[in-house]
Amino acid sequence: MSDYKAPLRDMAFVLEHLCDIDDLLELSRFDGIDRDAVMGVLEEFGRFMSEVAAPINALGDEVGAIHHPDGRVVMPEEFQALYQQYLAAGWGAVPFDPAYGGGGFPWVVNMAMHEMMNSANMAFAMGPLLTQGAIDALVHHGSETLKEIYLAKMVSGEWSGTMNLTEPDAGSDVGALRSKAEPVGDGSWRVSGTKIYISFGEHDLTENIVHLVLARTPDSPPGTKGISLFLVPKVMVNDDGSLGEPNDVTCVSIEHKMGIKASPTCVLSFGENDGAIGWLVGEEHQGMRAMFTMMNNARLAVGNEGLGLSEVSQQAAVSYAQERLQGRAPGAEKGTKSPIVDHADVRRMLMTNKARIEAMRALVYYEAAVLDRSNYGPEPEREASHELAELLTPIAKAWCTDMVNEVTGTTIQVHGGMGFVEETGVAQYYRDAKITSIYEGTNGIQAMDLVGRKLPMRAGGVMTDFIASMRGTATEAAAVEGLASTSEALAASLDTLETATNWLLENGLTDINNALAAATSFQRLFGVVTAGALLCRSALAAHGLLAGGAADDGFLAAKIVTARFFAEQLLPEADLMLAQVTAGPDDLYAIASDALWMG
Amino acid sequence: MSDYKAPLRDMAFVLEHLCDIDDLLELSRFDGIDRDAVMGVLEEFGRFMSEVAAPINALGDEVGAIHHPDGRVVMPEEFQALYQQYLAAGWGAVPFDPAYGGGGFPWVVNMAMHEMMNSANMAFAMGPLLTQGAIDALVHHGSETLKEIYLAKMVSGEWSGTMNLTEPDAGSDVGALRSKAEPVGDGSWRVSGTKIYISFGEHDLTENIVHLVLARTPDSPPGTKGISLFLVPKVMVNDDGSLGEPNDVTCVSIEHKMGIKASPTCVLSFGENDGAIGWLVGEEHQGMRAMFTMMNNARLAVGNEGLGLSEVSQQAAVSYAQERLQGRAPGAEKGTKSPIVDHADVRRMLMTNKARIEAMRALVYYEAAVLDRSNYGPEPEREASHELAELLTPIAKAWCTDMVNEVTGTTIQVHGGMGFVEETGVAQYYRDAKITSIYEGTNGIQAMDLVGRKLPMRAGGVMTDFIASMRGTATEAAAVEGLASTSEALAASLDTLETATNWLLENGLTDINNALAAATSFQRLFGVVTAGALLCRSALAAHGLLAGGAADDGFLAAKIVTARFFAEQLLPEADLMLAQVTAGPDDLYAIASDALWMG
Repeated sequence: MSDYKAPLRDMAFVLEHLCDIDDLLELSRFDGIDRDAVMGVLEEFGRFMSEVAAPINALGDEVGAIHHPDGRVVMPEEFQALYQQYLAAGWGAVPFDPAYGGGGFPWVVNMAMHEMMNSANMAFAMGPLLTQGAIDALVHHGSETLKEIYLAKMVSGEWSGTMNLTEPDAGSDVGALRSKAEPVGDGSWRVSGTKIYISFGEHDLTENIVHLVLARTPDSPPGTKGISLFLVPKVMVNDDGSLGEPNDVTCVSIEHKMGIKASPTCVLSFGENDGAIGWLVGEEHQGMRAMFTMMNNARLAVGNEGLGLSEVSQQAAVSYAQERLQGRAPGAEKGTKSPIVDHADVRRMLMTNKARIEAMRALVYYEAAVLDRSNYGPEPEREASHELAELLTPIAKAWCTDMVNEVTGTTIQVHGGMGFVEETGVAQYYRDAKITSIYEGTNGIQAMDLVGRKLPMRAGGVMTDFIASMRGTATEAAAVEGLASTSEALAASLDTLETATNWLLENGLTDINNALAAATSFQRLFGVVTAGALLCRSALAAHGLLAGGAADDGFLAAKIVTARFFAEQLLPEADLMLAQVTAGPDDLYAIASDALWMG
Repeated sequence: MSDYKAPLRDMAFVLEHLCDIDDLLELSRFDGIDRDAVMGVLEEFGRFMSEVAAPINALGDEVGAIHHPDGRVVMPEEFQALYQQYLAAGWGAVPFDPAYGGGGFPWVVNMAMHEMMNSANMAFAMGPLLTQGAIDALVHHGSETLKEIYLAKMVSGEWSGTMNLTEPDAGSDVGALRSKAEPVGDGSWRVSGTKIYISFGEHDLTENIVHLVLARTPDSPPGTKGISLFLVPKVMVNDDGSLGEPNDVTCVSIEHKMGIKASPTCVLSFGENDGAIGWLVGEEHQGMRAMFTMMNNARLAVGNEGLGLSEVSQQAAVSYAQERLQGRAPGAEKGTKSPIVDHADVRRMLMTNKARIEAMRALVYYEAAVLDRSNYGPEPEREASHELAELLTPIAKAWCTDMVNEVTGTTIQVHGGMGFVEETGVAQYYRDAKITSIYEGTNGIQAMDLVGRKLPMRAGGVMTDFIASMRGTATEAAAVEGLASTSEALAASLDTLETATNWLLENGLTDINNALAAATSFQRLFGVVTAGALLCRSALAAHGLLAGGAADDGFLAAKIVTARFFAEQLLPEADLMLAQVTAGPDDLYAIASDALWMG
C-alpha cells in the first residue's frame, strides 16, 4: 500500500510565490490570519490525512459503499471513524464566514486542504467537497430562514450536502431535465423526479443530508431558463432545529464503478409517495444562475482532484524508482544493479510527471487565490479577478484532469508489472482518476464553455490580457541564467496560442462549427501554455531567492530545471494543437455517422 | 454489456491491399490455401468469438480465475465450455505446419484471428497466445524427441504452454534470473526456482501444461549468456504418451490484478521437493537466443492485443454515440435532440480512435505478413523481410499498446458517466489494456531495443530503406485528388523522422546516454509516422479502387478522409517528439534522484 506525505514545501512555495498569500491575507476578510496560521492548518491537516485518511484508501476501494434493499447506504466502519475525527476538528468549516461558524480562511487554503484529502482518499473527499459546494450555494442564494436552519449544521459538518442535477436524459444537456416542483401553498414545494449520479446522495456518515435539487416549476419555460433550485432535506427539521420525520427521498441504487468506490454514486427518487418537501433557493427560474455562481469553485475542485491523485501517485512512483534495483545504468559500477530511477526512460517519466504536477498545483492554487480576490479583494480589482477566474476555470478543470489520467498511467508504467497488481495501490489512483475528466461537466463541455463563453469576454480582451501577463513572464526570464531557452520556448508557445486565439475570434464567432471543432484542442493548447508560464514564473521566483543568497538543498534549483524541461520538451505540444484548431470541422464530418464503423 | 462484431471488411481490405495476401498465398508453404479459405476461416472464427467468447468477457472479469490452497486454479465454467469449443474446432492449429497437425495458414491470418479473440475476450486469448508461443519455441529449438512427445498435443490445444522468464529480482533485466537446473544424468534436468507473472501458469482448461523455463545450469556465466531454456511439463508424460505423475511444480498464488482477471497470473515454484524434471530446449546457454527467435511473434501479438481492445471499445463508442441523444447540434432542427455523434467534440474523439485503430491494424497485419515472408518467402527476400520485421517489432508493440490506453480512455469519455459504470463494459477494456504497455518487455524496453539494436542494423540502412519506402507512398499521394495535404504532411513528418534518425546515428552511438534519453520519444515518433504512412497507403488503394469504378457505400471514401485527418491533425506530434529526441539527457539528470520529490 502506498504512503502519503503532504507536499508542504511545494504548497508553501506556490502560496508564497504564485498566489502572494501575504498580500491576500492583508484583506480585511482574513483579519487575524497570517501565513503561520495557514501553514499550521495545512501541516495539521496533512498529518491527519497521512495518518488517518490515506491508510484506509485501499480498504474503501475494496469494500466500497454498500446499498441495502431498504435504501440505506452503509459506509465502511473505518470511514465512519475518519468522518468523526474530521467533524470533531471542524475541518470542513475552515474556509467559511465566521458568521456561520467558519474559520474565515481563504479559499486557496481550502483548496490546499482538498489537494491533500484527494491524495489521501479521494472517495472520502467527495463527501466534504459536495457539502462545501452546497454551503456555497446557500450562502449566495439561500433565504435568511434557510441559512438559519441549515448553514451552521452544514458548516460544522454535522449535516452533509449534495448537488442534484443529472437525470437519465439530462446529462451534459442540463436544460433537458424533467424533475418537477409544485407549490404547496405554505411556501414549501413538493419535489418529484429521478436524479442520477448523485455523489454521497445517501450514506450514514451524518444524520441528515441537505439535497440541492434542480427542478421545473409549473408552466416554466423549456430549457435552462425554466429551472429552479430547491433545498430538500433527507430528514425534515423541526422548528426547534431537532430532526423530525424522514422526507420522501429514496436511494434506489448505487452505481458499481471503476473507481472512487467508497463514494456512493446514487440514484435518488424524490417524491415517490407524497412528494418530497423542499424550499426554493434563490428566485424561481433562477436555478441555473445559482449553479453558475458555484461553478468556478466546483470545477476548480475537480481539477484539484486531478492534482491530488497525481501527487500521491508520483510519490509512489518516485519512491519505487529509488528502491527498485534492475539492470545497470550507464556509468554505474560494473557488477552493481542500479535503482531504476537512474535509467533515462524512467527519469523521463518521473520528470514529465513532476513538471505536470507542479504546474497543476500552480494553476489550481493560482486560480483559487484569484477567486479569493474576486470575492474579497479591493472593489476595483474584483471584476478583473472574476473575469480571470472565469477564463481559467475550464483550463484548471480540463487540463488537470486530462493530465491526471496520464500521470497515474505513467506511475503504473514506472512500476512495471507491479503497477498492474492491485495491492501495490497505484492502480486505484488510475481507476479513481478516470471520472475527473467526466463529471462536473465533461472536458468537452469545458472546452465549449471556454470557446463559447469565456474567450468572447470583452471581445477577447480577458484572454488578451492574460496572454500579455504570460508574455511578461517570458520576457522576464529571457535574461536569467538557465532560463533563456525556457523563455524562448514559452514565447514561441505564446505566439502559437495567440495565433489560435485570433483564428477562433475570426472564424469561431462567425461559424459556430469552427469553434466547436476546435474547442478541445484549443483548451489543451491554452492549458499547456499556461502550465509552461506558471512553471516559468516559479523558476523566476526560485532564481530570485537563489540570487538573494537563499540556502538550497536542491529544491530551488529543481524549479529551474523543471521549468526548462517542460518548456523544451512538453510545450511544443502547442503546435500539434494549433494544427487541430485551424483544421476546421470539415474532416470531422466528412464521413457519414453511419459509416464511422462499417463491418 | 458490449457486443462485438468482427470487422471483416477492414480485415479483408488490409490483407489485400497492405499485405498483398494473394501474393503471399502463392508461396509453396501455403499450397492449397486461397483468399476464400482465409476469409472463410476469419468469418467462422469471428462468429465464434462474437457468439461465444464476447458474451462471457464481463463474467470473466467479475469472477476471474480462482486460486485454491491446494494450488489448483479454477477457471469459470463458461470458460471451460468456450475452451472445449475452441479445442474441438482446432482453432489453435490454424497457423502451424501440417506436419505437426497444423492448418498451414499464414501467421498473418493467425494474427487476424487473435485480433478478434482479443476483442472478444482478451483474458481468454492469453491462454492460446502463450501456447502458440511455446509451440513456436519448440518448433525452432526443440529436439526431435521433445517435438514428438509434445508438439501434436500442443498444436491441437489439448495441452497448453507457458513462458517462464520473470523472477522477483529479474524483470526487465532477464539476465539477473537465478532459477537453477542440475543435470540428472539421464538427459533430464532438475529445475528449481520461483517464477512470477506466469500467465496461465496454472489452470484447469487442459490436462497438461508445458512450461518453458529459463534457468541457469551449474557454472554458467553470469548474465544472459548463462541462461538455458527447459521444457518442464506440469504432468510427466509416459513413454506411451499417456500422462503419469505430477511434476514438482506448484502454483503458489495468483495476482489480484486491475484487468484480464480471467487470465491467471501465477507465481510458480519449481522444485520445492525433489526438483522439477525438465529437458533442455536448444543448446545449453542458448536460452536467450531461443527467446529472441520468438520475440518478434510474441511482441507483435501484444501489439495486436492493443488493436483488439481498441477495436471492440470503438465499436461500443460509435454505437453509443449514434444512439445517445443529448443537446442539439448546430444545424439540427429546432426542438430536436441530436445523437452525440453529431457533436464536433465527440466526432473528434471517434475520428481519432478510428484513424488510430485502422493504422494499428495496418501495422500489425503488415508486420505479420512480413514475418511470413521472412520465414517462407523466396530465399533472396527472406533476409530483407527479417530485417524489416526486426525494425517494426518495437513499433508494433509499443505504438499499438500506447494507443490502446488512449483509445479505450477516449471510449470511456465518449460514454460520459456511463463509461465509469462497470456494467457498461467499456471500463473493462480500459483496465485490461493497461498491462499491454508493460508485459513482453515494457515499452521503455522496446524503445531501448529500437535504438540500441534495431536502428544500428546495417549502420542505419534498414531504417533508411524503410523511410525511403514511406517516402514513395508520400510521393505517390502527392498528385492524387484529396490526398495532396496528406502527402505534404506525411513528407514533412518523414523529414522529421529522418532528422531524428540522423541525430541518433550521430549522437546515440558515441554516447549511449543520448540514445537512452531519446529512445521512447524516438519510438513514438517512428510509430506515428509509420501509422501515417500506412493510412496513406490505404487511402491510395481506396482511391485506386474508386478510380477503377468500384462501387462504394462510403467505406472506400472514408479511407481517404481518415488518412487525411490523421496526417493533418495527428501527425504533427512528430515535431513534439523530435524536440524530446534532440533535447539530450542533461535535464533528465539535472535533478539529483533524492530531490525528485522533496516534501
